[in-house]
This record gives sequence, structure tokens and C-alpha cells, in this order.
Amino acid sequence: MEKQYDVVIIGAGSGGYIAAIRAGQLGLSVACIESNPYAAADDQPRPGGTCLNVGCIPSKALLASSHLYEQIVHHTAEHGITTGDAAIDVTKMIDRKAGVVTKMAKGIEYLFKKNKVDFIKGHARFIGVQDGVYGMEVSSNDSVQRIRARNVIISTGSKPRQLPGATIDNATICDNAGALEFREVPRRLCVIGAGVIGLELGSVWRRLGADVTLLDAMPDFLPACDSSVSKEMFKLMSGQGLKFDLGVAIGHIALTAEGATISYRDSAGASRELVSDKVIVAIGRVPSTEGLGIEAIGLQLDQRGYVPVDEHCRTALPNLYAIGDVVRGPMLAHKAEEEGIMVAEIIAGQTGHVNYNAIPFIIYTSPEAAWVGKTEQELKRDGRAFKSGQFPFSANGRALGHGDAQGFVKVLADAQSDLMLGVHIVSSLASEMIGEATMALEFSASSEDIARICHAHPTLYEAIREAALAVDKRALNI
Amino acid sequence: MEKQYDVVIIGAGSGGYIAAIRAGQLGLSVACIESNPYAAADDQPRPGGTCLNVGCIPSKALLASSHLYEQIVHHTAEHGITTGDAAIDVTKMIDRKAGVVTKMAKGIEYLFKKNKVDFIKGHARFIGVQDGVYGMEVSSNDSVQRIRARNVIISTGSKPRQLPGATIDNATICDNAGALEFREVPRRLCVIGAGVIGLELGSVWRRLGADVTLLDAMPDFLPACDSSVSKEMFKLMSGQGLKFDLGVAIGHIALTAEGATISYRDSAGASRELVSDKVIVAIGRVPSTEGLGIEAIGLQLDQRGYVPVDEHCRTALPNLYAIGDVVRGPMLAHKAEEEGIMVAEIIAGQTGHVNYNAIPFIIYTSPEAAWVGKTEQELKRDGRAFKSGQFPFSANGRALGHGDAQGFVKVLADAQSDLMLGVHIVSSLASEMIGEATMALEFSASSEDIARICHAHPTLYEAIREAALAVDKRALNI
Repeated sequence: MEKQYDVVIIGAGSGGYIAAIRAGQLGLSVACIESNPYAAADDQPRPGGTCLNVGCIPSKALLASSHLYEQIVHHTAEHGITTGDAAIDVTKMIDRKAGVVTKMAKGIEYLFKKNKVDFIKGHARFIGVQDGVYGMEVSSNDSVQRIRARNVIISTGSKPRQLPGATIDNATICDNAGALEFREVPRRLCVIGAGVIGLELGSVWRRLGADVTLLDAMPDFLPACDSSVSKEMFKLMSGQGLKFDLGVAIGHIALTAEGATISYRDSAGASRELVSDKVIVAIGRVPSTEGLGIEAIGLQLDQRGYVPVDEHCRTALPNLYAIGDVVRGPMLAHKAEEEGIMVAEIIAGQTGHVNYNAIPFIIYTSPEAAWVGKTEQELKRDGRAFKSGQFPFSANGRALGHGDAQGFVKVLADAQSDLMLGVHIVSSLASEMIGEATMALEFSASSEDIARICHAHPTLYEAIREAALAVDKRALNI
Repeated sequence: MEKQYDVVIIGAGSGGYIAAIRAGQLGLSVACIESNPYAAADDQPRPGGTCLNVGCIPSKALLASSHLYEQIVHHTAEHGITTGDAAIDVTKMIDRKAGVVTKMAKGIEYLFKKNKVDFIKGHARFIGVQDGVYGMEVSSNDSVQRIRARNVIISTGSKPRQLPGATIDNATICDNAGALEFREVPRRLCVIGAGVIGLELGSVWRRLGADVTLLDAMPDFLPACDSSVSKEMFKLMSGQGLKFDLGVAIGHIALTAEGATISYRDSAGASRELVSDKVIVAIGRVPSTEGLGIEAIGLQLDQRGYVPVDEHCRTALPNLYAIGDVVRGPMLAHKAEEEGIMVAEIIAGQTGHVNYNAIPFIIYTSPEAAWVGKTEQELKRDGRAFKSGQFPFSANGRALGHGDAQGFVKVLADAQSDLMLGVHIVSSLASEMIGEATMALEFSASSEDIARICHAHPTLYEAIREAALAVDKRALNI
């Protein structure tokens, strides 16, 4: 007899595993299916998806290690600290990262058990619908099982976009997964794609000594960011030694004895060659739906390969939902989580909702960039009258105490109502400060509201209040 | 002719200088008077008060330096980083701290000029009231001047509470100011007072190698904190090597050739002696009003030496206000700032208001502790039914990535309405996370509200949402 579930979730990434736990909490019978072992030592499918296994979490572990290394090499003298020569054992750093990932993956398996979620290891595909119930087949190396689902959530995530002419071997030419597994610091590193992933991974290896060049087809740097953030980040990242060549057309990548030679045309149309030991390709990600058997149930993808959904992540088919990177919206773990919670609650008969205007974005460089709400360009494009206030960390006591006073907070507010529309932060801890800004946006705060709230001293987040005050030209400390 | 001001502010500390700037912004004629040079090289009175000169800011600079030193000595191996033996030149560390303070003090003088505030260096005292205008005399080493004020704000701050039998010489027996000026790491350090200042300064010197013992008259550790925070902090601080002896009665402190011998009675009544190279006395602070000439205008202090004020910081006399450490409420720079803004706006004819329930508290140890709103003990004492949710950083991906997964977030909410009543955090970045919690409290958020707001992943502040979910026993990642 095939087991029938209230909910089957395909993919145990950020959206999928959270949906599974929430559905389990709500008393539904749940299975969550995963086929990808990532880099698991036992080669068994592992929960956590891209984010945990080859994305956010491992990159943050390497960013922490490389940041500490850079602090020791470049920022001890000002504190009166001396050390002998610092060195880093890259394998130990990578092993530490793997340990963090494994611990968290095991944590998810524990949570599945605790919340009575069946974690099924294998590849799922639809085989049909009968009496409104979806039939699925899950195949692994050693077995094939059939299950039935009254509701299905597709959360199969995304995969790196391929660069024509570049074959990822994860030895010389790497995607995000390979770039987290280098066993030594490359002397020269070429990163194709100067977006979030490229900047984060480029920063890790630059801090450890690599000569890093980032190439990007877009002429504008970080075009999705507020223009003040893009400009500041370009200045800061360049100042740290990252080299940029933007607006290029990548041609051929030739493997050589010592690495690769990247042929490209620069923004002026001139032919260039870049010789590098390693290449990281980070030109974005595309939704991943191969082998799902969607044709068996009549589900159609859109032109770009996404599963079309409404604002509640409902597909065109009854009781079939899709969440996370496989649907419209930013490819962010926490966006997927929100959708996972919403869908689990809808299936359980509750109401769910995601405020897509209050989803924060973070770039984990040093300093970090983080933002929520509208950018200045978006407001101009929409013809919305706005006021802007900005405060630099060079006037913030805690930033000076830390010795890290780069960046600023910028607050955008409606010109008439003063409603806060966007907050843009460049700072060593922008990632954590964006929490207050997101809450303010969710509560429809005005910049005056922020200005009236006591901000602890000395903290970096005082700069949010000062920027809110600056909207009305009454910042106190600048 | 005596110059007459709309507002004269006595004391250029956190409350006073902010009140002066705000009053200047509002078009009032303003003087701000300061007599204390602190450790300024030119021995001239300097703005910024205790917080900037000998409190929050310099201690944070030393905490940053000593934290980096401790990272290098104890936390590099796990990242695969090796260095030679680390050493710290304490004088360089202290000089860096002094540089940060001087830069910020100059910044305040610049802000005074920018906002047309007369910064008067000297000691102010009242000489009388005539036709509702206060007469004052400001005396410095080389001059005495008289000024008149339609409104006066007393913001003279606080000074360290004296310990009977201990004479502060800032050589062996130090207060907060002396403890920021050590030129070498003491081998043995005794801190009398295991409160916020004692823990922060004790941590600085422990990290640099001192053998630190903290003595406190109170039998309970951090009694103002939520009991979960006190308990966790005691465990963590003890684990770091700080030694505590609580519930003691300090007797005699004898200066010796190599330092001091502290005689005390322990909580069991037994006589003890502690031999130490340096002693820091940090047993609290008392309001500072000496030489103000309040008798000339008939202002009375309360029994404990505070200036009595109402909720808008009005004293019993017309147009006379007092703010900051010299009035009731917590002795916190940001509480003083709020009061300064409120009073400046009231004087300018606007309305002002301070929400004393939404003032955050921070202890800048490592991990830090920060909280806002009510503690569990307060709610029990008030007989208010509440629910509690807690989430540990050991289940937080970013904390694990950082290698710093100590502590937790605890959320307290009303049992019936779910209104959030308090947030208590122990974490490496508790100080910055408390911003979101404070905003939630100001917006009368329920724990459900927090749970419905997208929290960026991976961040530490996700733990706030998880703790809010835990209030209803539906945390996702534990």
C-alpha cells in the first residue's frame, strides 16, 4: 500500500525544510524529499539545500575565518598588538566550514524527527493525479517507492547559471560549490560575475592573499542596490584590492597547465586576456526542475523555467504549491522560508501572507551591505516624491571604537507622509542592523517614529536613528 | 552687559550636549557650560561627559582591542590560523583609545559651532533669579563671567560612589577613569563591584592576562537583569576565568609595596584577604551637583542627592529642568540624550516625551548582554500573567559560522494579549540586536507580529524571531 501524506515537499532546502517543520507542527502528515548529497562524506542526500550546504552558511564560515586572518595581518598594529607572521592552513579552514555545515544538516534531520516529518532520500517525480491526490515515485540508488500526497510543495531550488563556453570542472573552473573547497589559496583568481556571490567569494580569497579580478557583463556595479550603496561598495571593494572590469563580453576560457586564460572584450571593445589559476563562475542562478515529471500532471513552467504561482505560492493546479528559488522573487533563503511557512499554514486551513516589500537583502563583504524596501532609483522610476537622510559611520562612536567606521545608513521616506520607504546600510554589521529597519517597514513607521525611539549608546545602530533624523535635516551628531 | 540666553545647559555630557544641539537646531540661543577637562592633554574643559571621556566610549575602544587580542591568542587555531606569540603594547592600546576620545570630543565642539551653541569652559553656579531669569556665574582659571538664562537645564551627571575606607589614587586604587589608563597589564586585579562597569573593565584586563577577582556586596549576580540572563552571564564570565566572591562585606584596603591587600568578610562570615596589584572600585555612581549654588535659587535635592523632576524633567522651579544621571531613572547615556531632546523641544514650545519602558540596557562583555522592557522577576512581582519563549544561539547558523554560539534570546509576552513585554539577549552582538527589540516594544508588537516578520538568513537576529515563535511553542529551528 502506498503511503499517503497530507503534504509532500520536494526539496529539503531553506523553504522546504521549514515548510515541513511548520506543517508537522500543525499536525499534518508530512514527507520531505531530498536527492542531493552535496559534499556529504557518506554521499547520502542531505537536507539544507544550497544555502546550508554550498551557499550562505559555508561562505559565512569562510568569511569569518578569512576576516580574522585579515584582522591579524592588517589591523593589529593600531591596537598595539604584535604577532609573528600569520599563516593559514586552508584545509583546516575548509574542514571547520564542513563541520559547521554537517552539524546543521544533522540538526535538520533531528528537527524532522522531532516534528514527525518523514525525510525521504531520493529523487521525486510526479507520476499522475488520481481523485485529486498526487502520485509520486521516489527513486534512490537502491530502491524505488511510491507515495501519495493530498498537497505538494515544490521547493527544488536553483542551480548556477551556466556560462557558454565554460565547463565547470570544480578543479580549475568552479561554481559556488567548488569555490568553497579550494585546498590552497590561488595566486590569481578570476571571478566571473561581480554580484553578491562573486563579491563574497572573491573577498574570502583576496583576504587570504589571492590576486582577485572580477569580470561582469553588466556595465553598472550592483545595479539592484541603491545607487549610493553601489557607489560606496565599489569604492570600498576596489580599495581593498579587488580588481573590476565591468561591461565585458566573456569569450573563450582556455584551460592551461597552470590554470585558465580568459579571453574577453572589455567595455571599450578591446580584446583582453586574463591569466588565472582558478576561475569562479557566479553569474546568477536558474530555477531547478529537471526530472520532476511535471508533464505527468500537466504543470507548465514559464519561459524562464520558473513555476508560475500567485501571491500565495499556488500553482495553476489544485493543492500544488511552489516556493523559494523555483518561483518569482528574489533567490533568498529567508524569502523561501517565509513562503514555506505561509504555504504550510494555508494547507492547514490558516491564512498566510508574505510581505514581499519587507524582505531584507545582505551582501556579507566587509563592510557588509544590507537593505530593505525601495531604492532611490525605484522611487524615481515610480515617480514617487521622497526625502532622503544619510549618516556616516565616521561620526559614530562605536564604529570609531571598533576601528571600523566605513559606510553609512541612508533612509528614504515619502515626501508628504514621511512613511519610511527604504533603508540602505553599508557597515561592518549591516546584516544585523537591517532587522530594526525591516521591523520599522513592517510597522509602517515614519522616519519621525524612528527618530523618537531610544537607540542605545554606543551602538552602530544609532546611525539608523541619525539617518532618520537627517530626513528632516536634524541629525544630531553630524 | 551680561549675555542672556534662551537656554543655558550646565554640563556638556551626553544629555547636555545633545540638548544644546537640539535647542540650537530649534533656533534658540544656547550656551553649554563644562568644567571638567578629564584627561585632555591641554587640561581644558572638554565636552562629552563621563560617557565619552571616561566611560562608554573609551571602555569600548579597550574592549575592541582586548577582544582582538583574545581572538588571536585563543581562537585562531580552530580557523587553521597560526601566528607567532602575540603581545600587546598597553601604552599603544591606551593611546589609540585616547585618540578616539579626542576625535569625538573635537567633533562635539564642531557641532556646537555648527549649531551656534556657545561652549563655555568653566564652572557654573547659580547666583539668583530676577524677573524669572536665572543669573549665573561661570568661573574658570583666568576669568569669571556672568550670564543670564530664561531656561536652564542641569545636566551635571554623576560621579563614582566612594567606598568607605578606600581612597582613590588612580595609581593602585582606581575608579573608572584610572582603570582606563593602566600602562601595563596588572598581574592580579581586584574589582570591587561586579556590575556593568566592573564586568567590562574586568574583562578588558582579564583578556590581556590579568588574574581578575570581582567582589560584590550583593549576594545576587546582576540582580537587575532577567534571572535567565544573570544565570547565563555568571556561567559564561566564570568560564572565562573571572573569579567572583559575592555577598561580601569589604573591610580595610591596605596599600602595600606591590599593590593592595583587601580585607573582607565573605558571605559565610569568614574573614578573607585578597592580595592584588591594582584595585578598581566600581560600586555604582551618585548624582553630581557640588558647587552649583542651588541654594541661591532655592532648589532642593532629594534624600539621595538627585534633582527631583517630573516625567518631563521639570524641576519644582519654573523654566528649570534637569536631565540625565542627576535625575531619577537609569544612569545611561541614551536615557540622558532622550531627556535632552525632550526638554529642548519643550522649551521651544513643542511637545516631548520619553518612553521609560523602552530604554535598552547593554553590558559590553563577550558575549554581550542586552535587554529592554520587563524582566521575568518584574512581571512576577507585578502579578502579570506572561508567556516566555527562548532560543539558543547554538541552533543559529551564523553564530556557528562565526564560532561564537553562546547565549540566547528570551522573549516575554502577555499571557492573554501576546503583547511583547520584554526581550533579553545574551550574544556576541546583543548590543546591536536590541534595536529591533526596542522598536518592537515601541510599536506595541505582539510576539506573533515578530514571528510574522521576515528575518534575514543567516543572521544572529533570526534568534529574536525564533524566541518570539517559542512563546507559542512553535520555534522552527529547535
